[in-house]
Amino acid sequence: MKIYDLRSDTITRPSGEMRKAMHKAEVGDDVYGEDPTVNLLEETAAKMTGKKAALFVPSGSMGNLIPLYVQCGRGNEVILHENSHIMHYELASAATIAGVMPRPVPGERGILTPEAIRPHLRPDIYYMARTGLIEIENTHNKEGGTCWTEDELSAIHRFAKKHDIPVHLDGARVFNAAVHTGIPVKKICSYVDTVTFCLSKGLGAPVGSLLCGDSEFIDEARRIRKMLGGGMRQVGILAAAGLYALEHNIDRLREDHLNAKKLAEVLNNVSWAKVDPDSVETNILFATIPDGNAAAVSSALKKKGVLCSGDGNRLRFVTSMEVSSQDIREACDIIAALKI
Amino acid sequence: MKIYDLRSDTITRPSGEMRKAMHKAEVGDDVYGEDPTVNLLEETAAKMTGKKAALFVPSGSMGNLIPLYVQCGRGNEVILHENSHIMHYELASAATIAGVMPRPVPGERGILTPEAIRPHLRPDIYYMARTGLIEIENTHNKEGGTCWTEDELSAIHRFAKKHDIPVHLDGARVFNAAVHTGIPVKKICSYVDTVTFCLSKGLGAPVGSLLCGDSEFIDEARRIRKMLGGGMRQVGILAAAGLYALEHNIDRLREDHLNAKKLAEVLNNVSWAKVDPDSVETNILFATIPDGNAAAVSSALKKKGVLCSGDGNRLRFVTSMEVSSQDIREACDIIAALKI
Amino acid sequence: MKIYDLRSDTITRPSGEMRKAMHKAEVGDDVYGEDPTVNLLEETAAKMTGKKAALFVPSGSMGNLIPLYVQCGRGNEVILHENSHIMHYELASAATIAGVMPRPVPGERGILTPEAIRPHLRPDIYYMARTGLIEIENTHNKEGGTCWTEDELSAIHRFAKKHDIPVHLDGARVFNAAVHTGIPVKKICSYVDTVTFCLSKGLGAPVGSLLCGDSEFIDEARRIRKMLGGGMRQVGILAAAGLYALEHNIDRLREDHLNAKKLAEVLNNVSWAKVDPDSVETNILFATIPDGNAAAVSSALKKKGVLCSGDGNRLRFVTSMEVSSQDIREACDIIAALKI
Amino acid sequence: MKIYDLRSDTITRPSGEMRKAMHKAEVGDDVYGEDPTVNLLEETAAKMTGKKAALFVPSGSMGNLIPLYVQCGRGNEVILHENSHIMHYELASAATIAGVMPRPVPGERGILTPEAIRPHLRPDIYYMARTGLIEIENTHNKEGGTCWTEDELSAIHRFAKKHDIPVHLDGARVFNAAVHTGIPVKKICSYVDTVTFCLSKGLGAPVGSLLCGDSEFIDEARRIRKMLGGGMRQVGILAAAGLYALEHNIDRLREDHLNAKKLAEVLNNVSWAKVDPDSVETNILFATIPDGNAAAVSSALKKKGVLCSGDGNRLRFVTSMEVSSQDIREACDIIAALKI
Repeated sequence: MKIYDLRSDTITRPSGEMRKAMHKAEVGDDVYGEDPTVNLLEETAAKMTGKKAALFVPSGSMGNLIPLYVQCGRGNEVILHENSHIMHYELASAATIAGVMPRPVPGERGILTPEAIRPHLRPDIYYMARTGLIEIENTHNKEGGTCWTEDELSAIHRFAKKHDIPVHLDGARVFNAAVHTGIPVKKICSYVDTVTFCLSKGLGAPVGSLLCGDSEFIDEARRIRKMLGGGMRQVGILAAAGLYALEHNIDRLREDHLNAKKLAEVLNNVSWAKVDPDSVETNILFATIPDGNAAAVSSALKKKGVLCSGDGNRLRFVTSMEVSSQDIREACDIIAALKI
Repeated sequence: MKIYDLRSDTITRPSGEMRKAMHKAEVGDDVYGEDPTVNLLEETAAKMTGKKAALFVPSGSMGNLIPLYVQCGRGNEVILHENSHIMHYELASAATIAGVMPRPVPGERGILTPEAIRPHLRPDIYYMARTGLIEIENTHNKEGGTCWTEDELSAIHRFAKKHDIPVHLDGARVFNAAVHTGIPVKKICSYVDTVTFCLSKGLGAPVGSLLCGDSEFIDEARRIRKMLGGGMRQVGILAAAGLYALEHNIDRLREDHLNAKKLAEVLNNVSWAKVDPDSVETNILFATIPDGNAAAVSSALKKKGVLCSGDGNRLRFVTSMEVSSQDIREACDIIAALKI
Repeated sequence: MKIYDLRSDTITRPSGEMRKAMHKAEVGDDVYGEDPTVNLLEETAAKMTGKKAALFVPSGSMGNLIPLYVQCGRGNEVILHENSHIMHYELASAATIAGVMPRPVPGERGILTPEAIRPHLRPDIYYMARTGLIEIENTHNKEGGTCWTEDELSAIHRFAKKHDIPVHLDGARVFNAAVHTGIPVKKICSYVDTVTFCLSKGLGAPVGSLLCGDSEFIDEARRIRKMLGGGMRQVGILAAAGLYALEHNIDRLREDHLNAKKLAEVLNNVSWAKVDPDSVETNILFATIPDGNAAAVSSALKKKGVLCSGDGNRLRFVTSMEVSSQDIREACDIIAALKI
Repeated sequence: MKIYDLRSDTITRPSGEMRKAMHKAEVGDDVYGEDPTVNLLEETAAKMTGKKAALFVPSGSMGNLIPLYVQCGRGNEVILHENSHIMHYELASAATIAGVMPRPVPGERGILTPEAIRPHLRPDIYYMARTGLIEIENTHNKEGGTCWTEDELSAIHRFAKKHDIPVHLDGARVFNAAVHTGIPVKKICSYVDTVTFCLSKGLGAPVGSLLCGDSEFIDEARRIRKMLGGGMRQVGILAAAGLYALEHNIDRLREDHLNAKKLAEVLNNVSWAKVDPDSVETNILFATIPDGNAAAVSSALKKKGVLCSGDGNRLRFVTSMEVSSQDIREACDIIAALKI
């Protein structure tokens, strides 16, 4: 049976061309700063995000954890969306490893507005924790791959500057946001102090993320990466895939977005699911299962070869280069034919 | 100018009789377990809460922190009310010291229902944090001194047992709850695994709280108290005040509750505040300042001798033995006369 | 049977006069900074140590933990004596709570010299932890109540300044050091950045220690004290005992020192123990039990009413105001008569 | 100028054959447990060490950190050699991340004996930290690549079992130990509960280590790896290099050992260094620079193309497949000719 794997874009495997790039990568000991391919990738990432420096980290989770540790600081609070990746999928590391108290805030489509944040700022009293960081997510995974507008970014930026609070962007899928909104990645990142983006999701590299920020921050981040056990040696092998991804795989995200839209339209027409196709902006879509049994639906789809993930009473579908437009058409047929 | 201090019940000072009890307290080195007055207080607290053992701690904050450290465990999540004391007034210690990730949940009057909690339980997948503890607060401070009914307690208890999750009660003011609802403290505590109550709030002792639970838990709690620097020596001086408070100061909480009610009625009749007197259950009341300037109102009241605290667009008043019924009448007159 | 409790000077109970001082202490809510007796004690402590500010903490352990947290900082190393109190008697809190890596260094009589420390400084490489603090102990408990000379203090001070590393003094018994050496406490403290001293050991107060340092440090220390659960309310009751102790109980430490010397002389003459009376400087003495069975000897002494503590193959005796000179003579007779 | 890089065996770059293995590696999403190459590597590692399960981690540091977190547990002490890698080269992570207090113990050649450890065990008193783990290192890096004999391993094993304390082996270079001593890796590992070995040192793979232990431990380790940000996706690319290394690069470590011996002999004959060739067991050697200026010597060598690292008054040389026997002969000539 053919499998249509729509569980996540983390499943993307390196293409033949990307493998060739890895195969011939020049490498060195990156703990000593001597891996030329890593160095090039870090410079490239810094340029693309408009930051002074960048650091290759083994995962998006580490890319989010380090700014919590360094920028927010233990004993302080991070203001973030209640459905942020950090709140749900990073195994409590914000609290346990970074020593940071999360202050989750609601917000439609995953957007945090100054109005929503303001009541959560702390007065300057010694017996209250301080707000150390605002963290935003673009695209916002658990809210359905939604994108921030430039006005929204600008508003949070001005608010944060006014209150002298740094902003970290979990930009695991910031290239999807850029492709959808047309706002260049560099522009998006100009509204934040630090940003993490992932090579290993829609961009198709096997492993790794880039944490970008100013030089002093990245110097300290490099220390914390080592402390966490994330310092690797001849990691240029992986960096080569990242460089390839940044050169070749950004524009094609558009295709993933179109495929997600197609899926949404089909899902909107089956009796057992509900989704607003207009709300689908990038490569992630959630379909509500009105009678609540998402696990059963997911199971039934799996039997037909269509893999997605259940999240409470919702199904999550994520498109990626692992599932071509032709595959999507086939998956859509399977979905349309499914009786629950 | 006479001062009517309604900022908190933490301000209560020991009475003459309580001071006498402290003066003649028999003491020993409590780190060695040799302070007879502390030992008696801990036995008394265990009996009153129906638990096997108890531990004197220097503050309610430490009394909440230790169960997070021991019962919840680092890397795990604690489900608690979004306006719980732990979320707001314990300086991020849940995350920073206990290494615990808070999972705040909304709930009217500070009550957590199984329905509200259920979506926040985690599936048993290795890459998701586990729920390690449910924490409830009775009376609920930031929600206005509200009390849990026995049905509400019983519901959370059954839910937690079913899911094999321990429950900690922040019972800083559990005696207020018992006095208001008529549910004995021991009965309230039968629905939870561990409980902290404070001697230094409405009960009028100068310092200290009791953490109660089973013996194995208290043994471990004693270690963590020492680790945090909370192990004290001839602390029987303070314990004597606690014993006095438990013997003499519980029933009189009723008076504080009546005084809060009186305040509420007066505040409901001034133009600049809004409060529902029926919602006032114990010794805490919040008055909404419709045009939002709680700080200005608090300032104006302070100039007349009435101290309260501002919390966003709300004023908080707390009654205690520091402000007698006669004082309350005078404070009410001041409030009624205030023009904003 | 009369008991001669020589286990520790932490067992001292408040005298009648001290109890009177507590009884009449004026108090307020210290979390709000409104306890006049605490405020006076903190000012007094600051003056006596020559520091800008001071903070009352519930224990010497918390008084050592806070500088580790604030001055050293997590991820950094503290250089300290291998037999320091922090290494042995504070339940791993340096690592677990402060997140600080201990770098223990040997040193005769508990003294750390620049020569001993130098090899433990770290080169400035991103993948090495940084040295964040030097911690010294005066008198040194586990090395036998030994005192630092002014030359030794001055040497460590100059070394630390040169390398821009702050120094914390665990001065739990710094008044014993001052009484023995004749170096005023203020002079001793002039060689360090922060100092903790205990009221509840030889000075005879029931509870508490003072952490002293510059104002910015104490402001931050106050936050961390609250975070740890060490913020107490009407703690002026205890502070009054501390003020009394500082006024009345310093000079009499001399008597404890003489008593320790007497004990040492007697112990040196029994067949089963070995001690060099000349090495006894203050109120702590260790007797070696050559055949190693310190526990058995301690047990035998206990049966005769003399309490001491076993530490490996050593017995520890600590004199204090709980055991008068007359008591010591009686204890000496018991010791001299003991056959092992 | 030709460079002879003897700074570390971490600098080894993948060979052509190893690159081919990586190029054709089958991969999947390892966070979902679906990377077949990682799965095969983990099974292989478990078999080779005689453990039930294994986990690929991005570094030896993470491979040591996780057992500290899981096996030792925060608030507990780990007994380890005073010159262990954990004490010196892991950026305080034992304390800061694992919350574990190190209890460093001296020992010749990096060996810990029961006699050396015994005095560091803690009595079972609530106010003392517990010993949670014994950690040993084989070969011992900072002591000069020294190996444990089977008697030494067996002694520590029996001691630990008797006291019910788990043992972790930092076996970053355990294959060097096995090659030198002739004790099979599986036999070495039978004396410990958990072991970490590195693919990226002498074995020549670019990145990664394996943490091995029983299944319950590895399940929990997988959680902590994710929490630390060490969960990677299509990491089979790296795992393929590891599999290749385990198949092809173990026996050739013998050559590195011979090369180190040759270096030692030459260094022993120059005027400016001192080394006992008989003490060189594996691929690491330290040369003492009697007049202490190791940095200057290292600099002088670097100018001639020979790279080594300075460690206090010692030079460290590490042989690896990056420096062939022919290269070593050339490097020896340079060393012999160097005038200081």
